[in-house]
Amino acid sequence: MKIYKYPKKDEWKSIITRPQKNQEQLFALVGQVLEQIKDKGDEAVREYELKFDKVSLDQLAVSPAEMEEAENLLDDELKKAIVNAHHNIEVFHEAQRFQGKKVQTMDGVVCWQKASPIQKVGLYIPGGTAPLFSTVLMLATPAKIAGCEEIVLCSPPDKQGKIHPAILYAAKVAGVSSIFKIGGVQAVGAMAYGTQSVPKVYKIFGPGNQFVMAAKQMVAMHEVAIDMPAGPSEVAVLADHSSNPVFVAADLLSQAEHGMDSQVLLVATDEKVLMEVKAETERQLKALPRIEMASASLENSRFVLVSDIQEAMQIINEYAPEHLILPVENYEKVAEMVVNAGSVFLGKYSCESAGDYASGTNHTLPTNGYAKAYSGVSLDSFIRKITFQELSAKGIQSIAQTVEVMAHNEQLNAHENAMALRRLEVQDENA
Amino acid sequence: MKIYKYPKKDEWKSIITRPQKNQEQLFALVGQVLEQIKDKGDEAVREYELKFDKVSLDQLAVSPAEMEEAENLLDDELKKAIVNAHHNIEVFHEAQRFQGKKVQTMDGVVCWQKASPIQKVGLYIPGGTAPLFSTVLMLATPAKIAGCEEIVLCSPPDKQGKIHPAILYAAKVAGVSSIFKIGGVQAVGAMAYGTQSVPKVYKIFGPGNQFVMAAKQMVAMHEVAIDMPAGPSEVAVLADHSSNPVFVAADLLSQAEHGMDSQVLLVATDEKVLMEVKAETERQLKALPRIEMASASLENSRFVLVSDIQEAMQIINEYAPEHLILPVENYEKVAEMVVNAGSVFLGKYSCESAGDYASGTNHTLPTNGYAKAYSGVSLDSFIRKITFQELSAKGIQSIAQTVEVMAHNEQLNAHENAMALRRLEVQDENA
Repeated sequence: MKIYKYPKKDEWKSIITRPQKNQEQLFALVGQVLEQIKDKGDEAVREYELKFDKVSLDQLAVSPAEMEEAENLLDDELKKAIVNAHHNIEVFHEAQRFQGKKVQTMDGVVCWQKASPIQKVGLYIPGGTAPLFSTVLMLATPAKIAGCEEIVLCSPPDKQGKIHPAILYAAKVAGVSSIFKIGGVQAVGAMAYGTQSVPKVYKIFGPGNQFVMAAKQMVAMHEVAIDMPAGPSEVAVLADHSSNPVFVAADLLSQAEHGMDSQVLLVATDEKVLMEVKAETERQLKALPRIEMASASLENSRFVLVSDIQEAMQIINEYAPEHLILPVENYEKVAEMVVNAGSVFLGKYSCESAGDYASGTNHTLPTNGYAKAYSGVSLDSFIRKITFQELSAKGIQSIAQTVEVMAHNEQLNAHENAMALRRLEVQDENA
Repeated sequence: MKIYKYPKKDEWKSIITRPQKNQEQLFALVGQVLEQIKDKGDEAVREYELKFDKVSLDQLAVSPAEMEEAENLLDDELKKAIVNAHHNIEVFHEAQRFQGKKVQTMDGVVCWQKASPIQKVGLYIPGGTAPLFSTVLMLATPAKIAGCEEIVLCSPPDKQGKIHPAILYAAKVAGVSSIFKIGGVQAVGAMAYGTQSVPKVYKIFGPGNQFVMAAKQMVAMHEVAIDMPAGPSEVAVLADHSSNPVFVAADLLSQAEHGMDSQVLLVATDEKVLMEVKAETERQLKALPRIEMASASLENSRFVLVSDIQEAMQIINEYAPEHLILPVENYEKVAEMVVNAGSVFLGKYSCESAGDYASGTNHTLPTNGYAKAYSGVSLDSFIRKITFQELSAKGIQSIAQTVEVMAHNEQLNAHENAMALRRLEVQDENA
């Protein structure tokens, strides 16, 4: 880790800058695969599954028999945990339902917003060593609550052509409509364009490697919406004299184990605590199975000592972390100072793991400083707010002059005319 | 216009498809300009202003003296209209303020969302023949209500180096922080990267030609968020036997006058009304100053006769129009059938002009079928909803088992450990 003691403000930039990647080649590669999927549909999907996931698939869709098999394979302890987590995620996202208010802006002019679910959504769940069934819950649960009619899920199969049973079980619990054994760029393409097997969706959600991310950004240029751009996962922890170094170290490591490029930032107002966290991190690291990954990530981690909480929060807000943990005194007051972050964890018991799995908040959050402009996934991500308005004859009398003058000055005479015709009718009726 | 009578469902696609453009060359051109702005800042901005807007600028920022001059130049009638429209837009967006609820998902586990304004936003207002001061109100008013600290506006100057006084006055009324005389791709680049004069912003809003749109999409790949992708403006009108053909024709024309590529769709359940609208459109067209533009757009417009309202709404929902006008019997009931649209206008008096200027709803709306996945601009567009959570010792007891089992099964042992350490402490304290 790199330790910065009382850095000057002009050093902040080097502390909070994320690594940059040259993505031109990446986009060119990904573009070729997308083109094939668009042109050849299922045939191209099968070819890429053979090439990248080393599996030859007859059926892309997961069958009801496979769903049943998955449920039988899973032990009861994990099933119960999935059901509990789903319950909490449901409760928190259910409370986010939107009720538009009717607003009378002038006499006879009434406007309102109404939530309408996105009809078809696509969820991507990466494969790899660990099955990310928690992400299935995080995406499908709000989609279901929002009322999305078609919830499509793609996840890469293993070499036996199977998706991990925990992913399938979580998909069942959360209400996914259909599941396809497709990974990577080809999954994103299949959901963006539609194929013979896979329905075209209007918005694509979910994490993935750099290829998946590039594919999402490319299809978002023309075809569909995406949840948000994404980079490596990140945590910032603020520690003061009262923080428990053992807990802080555990939280930093739970970020570091995600991958070599995970971003770990500690900002401390107390040098003793900072050094204890450092020692404790090194101690706990040794016991981790993912020690290689976590070590690599920790090497790039930054431990910053600052003079006070105000300065600490300035650095943190400039960094705009995906996750921010505040195990400090008066954390309610410190929480008021948060301007840029994805999700915030208050006090010594609120570890990131709680929100990653089961407290109810969403774990799909803006990384790479995007928290300055983007929110994490929430019920909002699965709806649109459509505006409605109704003007009465009285409304025309209230508003006609304003609209006609503005339209005239923007040289849009047909706009002016559309209002003038109505105004004249209302005048005639009142005469 | 093209008239389709009782089209079969397999003909719908050709009716509702928007024109496609090859954008590769466009993106290459735009990319070059962006690169220059990123590297050379103000110097490059000035070069492009000379090249594209034919003006040599000493100062890019609009001065207080210029603001005062603009206010003096504008006639009182227009100033009053701008103030009235601003008031209504303010009232409607003010009503959209978000209040997060604290939700206890389990005993001792409390989660909530809190709105935080995006600190720095950039608004782009195109130049050209007509000054789009209405768009200034539509973007700056909610930005101000949301609490954005820095509201930057760019708009191209005329050859005398001036921005239209109505744009400056609207910016003052709505609370814009700083205004720059910069147009096109160079404006988007300046706000995305920041220059010596122009502050870097986190999200860019506003309409523009295809170059501006491409620039917004390109900077959204890495640097900043944007309001939404955009295409040519569109309206769909649903007419039945009760619709007033004069009003319907005026509404179609007020879309057609926007530009040659404006999209105009009439869906009617009554052949007599459809033919009357056609005749009336041709009659009103002759009186329009923008007759050339409107004629070209009307040539590509589609008038579709269908058997009933159900079928009409199916086509319209497939099309997903930016604006949808429903001047029909029982329009409240028909409004319930709207699934995909940007903004909906109910009954014979609710013309699009009302919403374009002054009723209070936003006129920055999803085009090109994006209404299937995107909402129009609202107060939400200027905030992020940050999630917070607080677990007590009791919360750890409630949730630890679920989190640890899930983390273990995702093979994320440091995640498991971060929770287990807290569970053990709570157990010790209770022992």
